[in-house]
Amino acid sequence: MSSPTRLILDTDPGADDALAILLMLASPEIQLEAVTAVHGNVGIEKTTRNALAILEFLNADIPVARGCSRPLIKSPHNWGESVHGASGLGQAKLPEPKTEPVGLHAVDYLIQRFLAEPKELTLFAVGPLTNIALAIRKEPKFAEAVKELVVMGGAIRSGGNVTPLAEFNIHEDPHAAHIVFNSGIPITLIPLDATYKCLLAPADVERLLKTGSPVAHFVRDVMADYMAFYSKYEGFAGCALHDPLTVAAIIAPELLHLEEHYVDVDVSGGVSTGKTYADFMKVSKKPANMKVALDVKGREFVELFLERIMSFIHAQGGG
Amino acid sequence: MSSPTRLILDTDPGADDALAILLMLASPEIQLEAVTAVHGNVGIEKTTRNALAILEFLNADIPVARGCSRPLIKSPHNWGESVHGASGLGQAKLPEPKTEPVGLHAVDYLIQRFLAEPKELTLFAVGPLTNIALAIRKEPKFAEAVKELVVMGGAIRSGGNVTPLAEFNIHEDPHAAHIVFNSGIPITLIPLDATYKCLLAPADVERLLKTGSPVAHFVRDVMADYMAFYSKYEGFAGCALHDPLTVAAIIAPELLHLEEHYVDVDVSGGVSTGKTYADFMKVSKKPANMKVALDVKGREFVELFLERIMSFIHAQGGG
Amino acid sequence: MSSPTRLILDTDPGADDALAILLMLASPEIQLEAVTAVHGNVGIEKTTRNALAILEFLNADIPVARGCSRPLIKSPHNWGESVHGASGLGQAKLPEPKTEPVGLHAVDYLIQRFLAEPKELTLFAVGPLTNIALAIRKEPKFAEAVKELVVMGGAIRSGGNVTPLAEFNIHEDPHAAHIVFNSGIPITLIPLDATYKCLLAPADVERLLKTGSPVAHFVRDVMADYMAFYSKYEGFAGCALHDPLTVAAIIAPELLHLEEHYVDVDVSGGVSTGKTYADFMKVSKKPANMKVALDVKGREFVELFLERIMSFIHAQGGG
Amino acid sequence: MSSPTRLILDTDPGADDALAILLMLASPEIQLEAVTAVHGNVGIEKTTRNALAILEFLNADIPVARGCSRPLIKSPHNWGESVHGASGLGQAKLPEPKTEPVGLHAVDYLIQRFLAEPKELTLFAVGPLTNIALAIRKEPKFAEAVKELVVMGGAIRSGGNVTPLAEFNIHEDPHAAHIVFNSGIPITLIPLDATYKCLLAPADVERLLKTGSPVAHFVRDVMADYMAFYSKYEGFAGCALHDPLTVAAIIAPELLHLEEHYVDVDVSGGVSTGKTYADFMKVSKKPANMKVALDVKGREFVELFLERIMSFIHAQGGG
Repeated sequence: MSSPTRLILDTDPGADDALAILLMLASPEIQLEAVTAVHGNVGIEKTTRNALAILEFLNADIPVARGCSRPLIKSPHNWGESVHGASGLGQAKLPEPKTEPVGLHAVDYLIQRFLAEPKELTLFAVGPLTNIALAIRKEPKFAEAVKELVVMGGAIRSGGNVTPLAEFNIHEDPHAAHIVFNSGIPITLIPLDATYKCLLAPADVERLLKTGSPVAHFVRDVMADYMAFYSKYEGFAGCALHDPLTVAAIIAPELLHLEEHYVDVDVSGGVSTGKTYADFMKVSKKPANMKVALDVKGREFVELFLERIMSFIHAQGGG
Repeated sequence: MSSPTRLILDTDPGADDALAILLMLASPEIQLEAVTAVHGNVGIEKTTRNALAILEFLNADIPVARGCSRPLIKSPHNWGESVHGASGLGQAKLPEPKTEPVGLHAVDYLIQRFLAEPKELTLFAVGPLTNIALAIRKEPKFAEAVKELVVMGGAIRSGGNVTPLAEFNIHEDPHAAHIVFNSGIPITLIPLDATYKCLLAPADVERLLKTGSPVAHFVRDVMADYMAFYSKYEGFAGCALHDPLTVAAIIAPELLHLEEHYVDVDVSGGVSTGKTYADFMKVSKKPANMKVALDVKGREFVELFLERIMSFIHAQGGG
Repeated sequence: MSSPTRLILDTDPGADDALAILLMLASPEIQLEAVTAVHGNVGIEKTTRNALAILEFLNADIPVARGCSRPLIKSPHNWGESVHGASGLGQAKLPEPKTEPVGLHAVDYLIQRFLAEPKELTLFAVGPLTNIALAIRKEPKFAEAVKELVVMGGAIRSGGNVTPLAEFNIHEDPHAAHIVFNSGIPITLIPLDATYKCLLAPADVERLLKTGSPVAHFVRDVMADYMAFYSKYEGFAGCALHDPLTVAAIIAPELLHLEEHYVDVDVSGGVSTGKTYADFMKVSKKPANMKVALDVKGREFVELFLERIMSFIHAQGGG
Repeated sequence: MSSPTRLILDTDPGADDALAILLMLASPEIQLEAVTAVHGNVGIEKTTRNALAILEFLNADIPVARGCSRPLIKSPHNWGESVHGASGLGQAKLPEPKTEPVGLHAVDYLIQRFLAEPKELTLFAVGPLTNIALAIRKEPKFAEAVKELVVMGGAIRSGGNVTPLAEFNIHEDPHAAHIVFNSGIPITLIPLDATYKCLLAPADVERLLKTGSPVAHFVRDVMADYMAFYSKYEGFAGCALHDPLTVAAIIAPELLHLEEHYVDVDVSGGVSTGKTYADFMKVSKKPANMKVALDVKGREFVELFLERIMSFIHAQGGG
């Protein structure tokens, strides 16, 4: 087996963010080397604390850097709390973390890490792209030092989930997304078009709970509010594994239907602000700047997710 | 059989507009009562002349009213001529029409006709929506007098064909589309999502040509430039039956996959100007304002189209 | 003396609109030939009724046409009623008019009148420009048939009075203003920069009231709410003679400081929507499209206004 | 005399930037402690080099930090070079600087300096506001650590100099200006409304040249292209002392007519993008966020400027 993908995760935990971290730790193809926190589902105080607490709970000794507390231009808003619960982790109650974030700001931490080993590290972003955009603007060499960037965000053919046209991560900082998408970094985008097909059902959670493991209870609790929200507003029992699906880009790319397109974000301030669009018919004549997942074998991914969590629980002596 | 749908067509012929007229005349379910011309594929002088010439060529004694010469707000542009040929009718050469447009402006003609028989007439629009928007704004009772409006326009999940996000008819007068979509008129929208699946292939044209009928030659000639354009830019031989597909809403609605959604147009002036979007996830909480065709049994429609044209040719004594 | 300026007034009465009508009737240099009503300060029902009632009250046998009931694109709003009172005429109570509007829509009436005598008639517009924009778009020959257009609207160097950047008439239908300003009609614009310097003070109203004339009482009553609004929000006793100042363009142009500039309106949908701007430094390289009044001898105009009203009262046998 | 104002200057030299530095060094009321360079009139390589070279030429041992190379969101453009010459310093030829910029990025240097001595240092910004906006977004405590910020930028009642509505510094990075203006930092804004009244005439340059000092020759050479540009496009001999006028906020505030207003920047992407507007009529109900110089005793400032330069030359043993 080839050596694992060395990865830094930029995240705003966040219920499904927690499951993305869990899936990364449960996947031998990935070596998670650092986590940078960003505002998003909840405020920066909470996302930083949650990142630390999740990693401690999962016995992962990985540095966390605290990042930006608000979007570049638009005013922050608090839509996320109703989905992710007041703490950002739904009904899960994790102990206060004992560790502290590293001394560097996430923007500087990202710059330092990627410039130290150019083209060696992969970056994942599952929250608003503020930290990464600031790193790009502050350090012009940052973009070319990133081997690959995998982003959860956008709604291409799908409708948006915060406006008719826009998905939360991109809409929350559209200007940051515009900067990142046009930076020259090789990008794989995982939009709602794919993530809404990866539905974790109550029966799936039941399967995990049979192990009796605290990790299984954490999965149940962290997704409880999320599932309640989906049940109320989206009309189905269960919830989408938005952030965890990014991990498929490393561990099971064959499940994703990827197409190369020129993709950008509307930052006009009009009704389409935050819309992530692909130039399918190439009318802009611009070269493709990313691979975008327009479809996925959704149930297969959910099964893989469950399998990996089960293995992780067993490896920890659970079940 | 129930009585035919009494229909007024607002159009900018235009190569595929000509085929829509032909299909209407070839369909006993439809009684085409009038045509109103609008700027669009080519200028108003040419679209008016073409409407008259097509109807004369097809022996249809139907009044034509001349309408608006430019979009409400945006500057007109001439993109269409490369697709529809300098005359708007590709390589087809029709005799100068002997008839004249009616004395009334299309806006007033539409107002007069629909107010004279409220809820009796169906309106089809296969060009920019300028005439209809002006009728709505000038006569507040117009909207409620229209029984149904079927529009060719927009790109919902599809990419746009003039910008990455926008389709020609809507982009050419986005403000007019915004007025029409929010007018309360019952609308069925036929966007690129459906029309790009209805491809007339060169072999289809060959089948028609075997009749030896002048109508078949007209079909070949009127679509010649269009097919050349598609072959060059869209990468397939053949071309989409955009405007004719609207007729399916009357003669073969079972071929269309229609969903009810709130649909509007971006008029912000930003990169998404002219984007026709559906609020699939109902985040705007606005009630559905139209039925939109998101899919179609494309080949079945093309076969139906060919069948009807063949019958028309035979009825005229051709073949 | 040369023959009087033959004039058609497009208006949304409206308190200061009433005084503009009064000043026109009191000025021998002007022959007011027709009034077209438009939505604006209050709805179209009220502005049409008010136009009829004012003309009857002032014994002027002049036709009135009813026009558009809402802006072209933006949603209408009712800000005006707090300034102009529920009826649109403040505290003034005029009898129900006995006359009816002409049968034609204002848009068609304007087209008919100006095309019948090209370059003979002057148009004044003291409300939103919806009627005039529709006339331009419906009849391409309309613009060149207008001898001159004098518009009350805009805030060039002045702050706006409905948004920080925009004045009411222009902001209420910015797309209409954009159409009119770019139509080629020779325009004189009277913006807030000038009108806010023409303040009718309570003492001025007192002078009129000494005549004991019903016209003087009408002036007091029609401006009562307006003055109360100014006193509350603008911090001075008295109120600006916005609409009457347009009449200075005919009867006392020497009071206006007019400059020629390229002037346009922001219709982007952003924070500056409805901003009327002048390209003072000619960075757009566009030729001037209007004369704009950037200053005025304000008190001299108010004195002239009072003088004319006094003469009118005396001529009517008042005082 | 009270102790001098301790000041850090963020600048993009730039011809008039050079004169602002000269005036600061010539003013005992000011202690210039550092310079941070930003993209703007020319690229960041040149503005950093120019800042170092100017300070060496003027014998000022002051640290320079290199900052951002492009605007936050909009694409950079090179309009400035035609006004400021290819080097950014017109016809002036300064030796290559011997000193180097400090090791820290300007954004981090600003954060470090202001957080080290909260509310002790004054910040001047005479280029695009990119560095300062990034400092605000990266370090939430930065804004409250700045004692005062004086900005050259904007066109309030004045027309713009790059678009009909917008001034160069603000237009070059409107999003940065929006961030800075809404940051809570106490701001004094010096817009075109004031700076275009401070015209350095050829005769003024002649007066300086009589000293025979290299500093006088530098003033002539650095402004040569600028004066040629003004003479060609703005129609007067001489040029505006845009950046130097900021210094008046410290050394001669009595020359400025300052008003307190809520001021913001249009970042909508429409025609008014980069427009700096004041809510004169307080329609937004937002509290004032800055003092803005709407007028200036222009000739008196130019005389003061000349006086200070003469004194500087004499102090250096020139003349």
